[in-house]
Amino acid sequence: MESPARQISLVPAPDRRQSETALAVARGTARLLWSLGFSCISELPLPSGRRADLVALNERGEIWIVEIKSSVEDLRADQKWQDYRMHCDRLFFAFTQDLPCEIFPEGTGLIIADAYGAHLHCEAPEHRLPAATRKSMTVRFAMAAAQRINRLVDPQGHAEF
Amino acid sequence: MESPARQISLVPAPDRRQSETALAVARGTARLLWSLGFSCISELPLPSGRRADLVALNERGEIWIVEIKSSVEDLRADQKWQDYRMHCDRLFFAFTQDLPCEIFPEGTGLIIADAYGAHLHCEAPEHRLPAATRKSMTVRFAMAAAQRINRLVDPQGHAEF
Repeated sequence: MESPARQISLVPAPDRRQSETALAVARGTARLLWSLGFSCISELPLPSGRRADLVALNERGEIWIVEIKSSVEDLRADQKWQDYRMHCDRLFFAFTQDLPCEIFPEGTGLIIADAYGAHLHCEAPEHRLPAATRKSMTVRFAMAAAQRINRLVDPQGHAEF
Repeated sequence: MESPARQISLVPAPDRRQSETALAVARGTARLLWSLGFSCISELPLPSGRRADLVALNERGEIWIVEIKSSVEDLRADQKWQDYRMHCDRLFFAFTQDLPCEIFPEGTGLIIADAYGAHLHCEAPEHRLPAATRKSMTVRFAMAAAQRINRLVDPQGHAEF
């Protein structure tokens, strides 16, 4: 019998678009971000409705977004990165192997990751968020993280409105 | 054999100061806060090191703190509430039974709760946080909530520094 713990759907939310590789890259990247002083959550919806793969926040209130890419084709097909960029101080792509920094859109960085860790391969330039966007992103991050805990601890009490 | 799910220590963090009653009041209060548009986390450490029982945040960035009291004596013995008040827009006490609003410190409110729900018995006046305190509390809330998820999903990768 499958244990109860395995039946709990937590984070990252298991949607069918996520491959095993993407989940591994997310884990390794989250470990890197943690070592850099950031806490992160996965699959955070932005105001546009698009979901950022990983959003990271540090004590100074800085916000990074990391988009996980499974292939160069996946990267080239991405038309959404400017939306992500408008909602963070730095935007990175995370990938499983070294790629030349030049193939990434200008103003983005590259993280190389596996399931156990990651490293910052190409630094991303900082483009500071306007104060109002930073505030709304921080509140959005905070409420999403707290809701995920609440739904886990007390699912009956925290259904969707 | 106890199931793996039961062995996961989540939120509220199980410290020995929390009674079953306090946990029940926390659950009912969290449900009320959720119905009012707030997400909350339990046991959030403040800069002083004191831990607020419940901290709640809504989309407008408003922050409420709720301190759970097990008895009138517990309330009277509380010398810490002014520290809590300095870190929220409204401060409430939560209790299991109706009490006259007058016995609570001026400027605080009262929530009556059981394990299944709660109601706002005495409204708390608003004392708006300074912007810098609001920002630091929001970041503190967000990072704590995200860390709790991360430690649950990937305990090896998110040990204390």
